[in-house]
Amino acid sequence: MQGELIRRFLIVVAGGTGTRMQSAVPKQFMPIGGIPILVHTLRQFHAWDKDLQLIVVMHADWIGQWHELAQTHCPEIVHQVVRGGQERFDSVKAGLACIADQEAIVGIHDAVRPLVSKATMQRCFDAAHRWGSAIPCVPVTDSIRMVVGSGSKHIDRAALRAVQTPQCFSMDILQKAYQQTYQSTFTDDASVVEAAGFAVELVEGNRENIKITNPEDILVAESLLLPR
Amino acid sequence: MQGELIRRFLIVVAGGTGTRMQSAVPKQFMPIGGIPILVHTLRQFHAWDKDLQLIVVMHADWIGQWHELAQTHCPEIVHQVVRGGQERFDSVKAGLACIADQEAIVGIHDAVRPLVSKATMQRCFDAAHRWGSAIPCVPVTDSIRMVVGSGSKHIDRAALRAVQTPQCFSMDILQKAYQQTYQSTFTDDASVVEAAGFAVELVEGNRENIKITNPEDILVAESLLLPR
Repeated sequence: MQGELIRRFLIVVAGGTGTRMQSAVPKQFMPIGGIPILVHTLRQFHAWDKDLQLIVVMHADWIGQWHELAQTHCPEIVHQVVRGGQERFDSVKAGLACIADQEAIVGIHDAVRPLVSKATMQRCFDAAHRWGSAIPCVPVTDSIRMVVGSGSKHIDRAALRAVQTPQCFSMDILQKAYQQTYQSTFTDDASVVEAAGFAVELVEGNRENIKITNPEDILVAESLLLPR
Repeated sequence: MQGELIRRFLIVVAGGTGTRMQSAVPKQFMPIGGIPILVHTLRQFHAWDKDLQLIVVMHADWIGQWHELAQTHCPEIVHQVVRGGQERFDSVKAGLACIADQEAIVGIHDAVRPLVSKATMQRCFDAAHRWGSAIPCVPVTDSIRMVVGSGSKHIDRAALRAVQTPQCFSMDILQKAYQQTYQSTFTDDASVVEAAGFAVELVEGNRENIKITNPEDILVAESLLLPR
């Protein structure tokens, strides 16, 4: 309804245990300019909307260390911490269980995407409020092929979009979608929502909003997050 | 034939004029550690195979400056310089016109991919010698969607591959393929060869072998190319 206050939530999925980084520290805790990536991510959202309700989902093994890091680096950012599950799917479900507001708009974000822009956040939450679901995307710059049987075929990249986060949805859609049984094709929230029969709206993301996966991504993030 | 010496050529496509970098210098001339990207690229290939015949194709406006840069940074790397055409397709064609050896194996490489590994070069040229065509690919790490009409659909990224260079082919296949009329769907050499009815073999690339397109890619390349 017009003029009604819509409550916005953000579930930050920080489930990774860092195996791809060959590091003892999970990648969401890796420092950029001395500050853990997850702190950078929370700061970005908090700076955009102080009323955004933050829910961080992570592996039980890391919660104690996270509380210490948060106390040191972002004591001003109020957030709930929830124990994650086996798959990302289970972690999102655990986050959703903390949200009682049926009218809420809920964003789901990768902890290791600290470079999301305010414009992307705004577009995603606004479009989800309007359409029920919205995910940020950017054009694909590589030439892409699809493996088919023993061969492969060229795919027109002009029609492809690389999907980012925050993926935003109305709470009622998410609740219905996350009642499904987990499937291995659920690589993001849009795929879960879509499998439940809902349409997914694409909105413009921002190119810098990379998922920090490999050591060289840290360098990119440093150059963009730290003052020169 | 076994024991026969196969001549290998490499066409380095350096056609870009740098608009995406918002730079007056084309990106293949941008320095990494004080050395132009194109020099890094030539050095990688030259270090792998001193007998590899190098053909650099670039816009006429930049050839003079390139001769100076090459004289300064890599006078020991013998290479031919050829004027490029309007599209990448035309530039490759101009490069092919310099190769008289019908038995050759020809690689085509983006000037702004200085991080190609020796293992990738070896795999591509070996597979092209065996199969007639080989292109290096890596798995896609982003979630990908395809725009279909006014909507979009989830694509299983497990079946997708991001295509790199050097894309390698037997000279006879390339000659036939590049007799076709240019189409806008020709985003790489594999798509040209495939449109001519030839199969394309996928071989493993290397993840670091990025195309330097945006300013942040320079940072990644610096960290990987320069000694610590």
